[in-house]
Amino acid sequence: MKNSPYSHDTIAAIATPPGEGGVAVLRISGPEAVGVADHVFMGRSPLREVGAGHVVYGRITAPGSKTVIDEVLATVFRAPRSYTGEEVVELSGHGGVFVSRKVLEAVLSAGARLARPGEFTQRAFLNGKLDLAQAQAVADLIHARSESARRVAVAQLGGRLSVVLQGFRQTLIEACGLLEIELDFVAEDIEAIDKTALAETLEALRREVRTLIQTYERGRVCREGVRLVILGKPNVGKSSLLNALLARERAIVTDTPGTTRDTIEDQLDLDGLLVTITDTAGIRQSNDPVEQEGVRRSEAAAHQAGIVLVVLDGSRVLDEEDRAVISLAQSLNVPQLLVRNKSDLETFVKPSSPELLEASLSISAQTGAGVDALVQEIKAHALGDGLPGVDDVVIAHLRHRDALANTASFLSQALASLADDMSQEFVALDLRGALESLGEITGETTADDILNHLFSSFCIGK
Amino acid sequence: MKNSPYSHDTIAAIATPPGEGGVAVLRISGPEAVGVADHVFMGRSPLREVGAGHVVYGRITAPGSKTVIDEVLATVFRAPRSYTGEEVVELSGHGGVFVSRKVLEAVLSAGARLARPGEFTQRAFLNGKLDLAQAQAVADLIHARSESARRVAVAQLGGRLSVVLQGFRQTLIEACGLLEIELDFVAEDIEAIDKTALAETLEALRREVRTLIQTYERGRVCREGVRLVILGKPNVGKSSLLNALLARERAIVTDTPGTTRDTIEDQLDLDGLLVTITDTAGIRQSNDPVEQEGVRRSEAAAHQAGIVLVVLDGSRVLDEEDRAVISLAQSLNVPQLLVRNKSDLETFVKPSSPELLEASLSISAQTGAGVDALVQEIKAHALGDGLPGVDDVVIAHLRHRDALANTASFLSQALASLADDMSQEFVALDLRGALESLGEITGETTADDILNHLFSSFCIGK
Repeated sequence: MKNSPYSHDTIAAIATPPGEGGVAVLRISGPEAVGVADHVFMGRSPLREVGAGHVVYGRITAPGSKTVIDEVLATVFRAPRSYTGEEVVELSGHGGVFVSRKVLEAVLSAGARLARPGEFTQRAFLNGKLDLAQAQAVADLIHARSESARRVAVAQLGGRLSVVLQGFRQTLIEACGLLEIELDFVAEDIEAIDKTALAETLEALRREVRTLIQTYERGRVCREGVRLVILGKPNVGKSSLLNALLARERAIVTDTPGTTRDTIEDQLDLDGLLVTITDTAGIRQSNDPVEQEGVRRSEAAAHQAGIVLVVLDGSRVLDEEDRAVISLAQSLNVPQLLVRNKSDLETFVKPSSPELLEASLSISAQTGAGVDALVQEIKAHALGDGLPGVDDVVIAHLRHRDALANTASFLSQALASLADDMSQEFVALDLRGALESLGEITGETTADDILNHLFSSFCIGK
Repeated sequence: MKNSPYSHDTIAAIATPPGEGGVAVLRISGPEAVGVADHVFMGRSPLREVGAGHVVYGRITAPGSKTVIDEVLATVFRAPRSYTGEEVVELSGHGGVFVSRKVLEAVLSAGARLARPGEFTQRAFLNGKLDLAQAQAVADLIHARSESARRVAVAQLGGRLSVVLQGFRQTLIEACGLLEIELDFVAEDIEAIDKTALAETLEALRREVRTLIQTYERGRVCREGVRLVILGKPNVGKSSLLNALLARERAIVTDTPGTTRDTIEDQLDLDGLLVTITDTAGIRQSNDPVEQEGVRRSEAAAHQAGIVLVVLDGSRVLDEEDRAVISLAQSLNVPQLLVRNKSDLETFVKPSSPELLEASLSISAQTGAGVDALVQEIKAHALGDGLPGVDDVVIAHLRHRDALANTASFLSQALASLADDMSQEFVALDLRGALESLGEITGETTADDILNHLFSSFCIGK
């Protein structure tokens, strides 16, 4: 993997987002980065004579031409002290779409190849500048749309998760080493290792792995946000509640088309957590095919929920339709909040069933009464202890959770083999399996297709 | 103007286009730029100790916080050797929308003010790093959508126009100087200047100014492109012709909604020239209100045209409707091309009127015959001698043309005063008027409201 053919040619791409802005940065990386840049760059001196990390002014022309394409500031980074670990040149020019494309065309005609999405970061990984968990964090940071997502990504990029994983790895390597010494001596019947101590070590490790696995749900919610689906029969005040939440918290303007017929989606920033709220069509029995379709969509939305908010009309007695909605919510296996709306009306009454009274919150979407308490409940259900702190290590990717789960199950196998006094070769095999699973997170043992898939989800120029 | 209050505080903005990308650049400029940056930047050493033009790695935290927001590369530029002429710090971080906003928030809370659109370039102008024509070229370059627009902007940014204008200015200043010496000596009745020589100088200058004025149409077409409107009665093959042109040349994907009911707009890149083609609804007499509306829109589109393309069905004899279209086109006072389509049909005949035969091109939108020749004609009509070369000086802004026209008319007044042997004070006044008009282009004498308007059309961060 470290000798991937990718790292032998020189690649280039515009690293800034497409569009009009004050600055566009073109990045070139590879053994010929400086040579390629010198074909198009005309400055006081050629870039090969410019010191690393120095910014110099110059003009860009097509190779062999004198027509100035743009004026730029160029910075040379020398291998291995660059983002990719290779020779890197960054050209910072005027931020127009057309002009930066022309600069890119000049660089490509000077001998660079257009970079694939994520290829700069992939090279950084291949050259050992970042492990795979950190490379993943680069993409997470770019895609972060909330404070919680940003925090998890920065911590992972900074290497907190990697340090923990390296600790696990170290423990496993030491145990493997012990076992291999043992295997060497097995003919001579010498007991080189203390099996009880080894079992204790592996058990402690498994506990730590499982603790880390348990951070996944929180990490995932931090990274992706939580989807809150509002359910209820018609006219209980679902839309009013959505509007009350949006008015109270900071609504996020989304650039993805979220509005589909019959369900309305909005996003808000709940103290750093991205909450996508879906307001569904009222759910009720109906023979009207249009309304049936609305109900079908509401139920489909409910199955995507991270938290379900069931809205009841507290000014009326519960009916069959309310009960159907509650039972739908209960079938979903996600946290649910019961809300009795319209507490401002005179006919608002305590519910007849004491369980419902205990389980539910009284609110008035109209006056805003109780909405604060509801928001606190949503936060508590979504994130538990709030946003992760700077020192919290959480995992936020299913791929990481699965790899850790495999690690734990190899450890369990190893422990079982030890307990059964099986041949230590089996134990060693299990530990190597655990090591490999762990290595999939940081990239030591990740298959090429997974790597390619992972980097292809990056933007071009990163 | 050079002492504008704007230049006394420290401003910051994200200089890269909004969106997800590999890199986001945050720019800080002003007397406290380095101090502000040091409040949020944690590197090996504070930025105040980093040499100018050196790139250094560090982490961004909110002032007084230890929570890392992002990892960045920072570059310090020292006044006056920076884009704005002030102290400048550029922070290049991960390209996410959310994370770069957080970095900006940290910088703002450290004491910078959010920059207004164009404010960095405005400061560069106020500090004498660029004249106004060059500052305008910065915006033109960013907004350039074609090779011709890019060339005109780069030439203007490089200072070619400014050099020519400075030459004009020098001539005027010398003439004013002579006249003022003359005025001092007037009591003593000494003829210090040669009026004939002065008149010749001013006449030569006026010729040069007028020559420059004449480049405006070409410069404008380079910068903005040309709007080609296809007119014709229904079923003469207008849409087929549009498709033939789009298929042959490089169609530009436009991000502005160009399609309106009844007229279809497309853009193509004709060897570097941006051509916006509007295909109109067929024009004919009709009592159908919907069709009348279509005709009204076609006529409105025709009045926006830079070039009109009249399409006739060459396989049929001209009728009243064709003649109405031709006469509409002739009323428009823009270049027009007459095209007789359907040359592939057996009934295609030479037109009865010899003028029409001479003035028109025979084409077949179906087979593509004659389309090449048509494209050459369009180019010739739009740009004359082709794209401007690297040494061509053209003006591309109405504001510049108007200022030059005023310059020329002040020169004419001065020449008339000289010819009439009027008091030289009048001549001096005219020359000062000419100088002022000229100074409006480069910014020496531009009114503040015009300056503000000009810079406010820039993007934020430039």
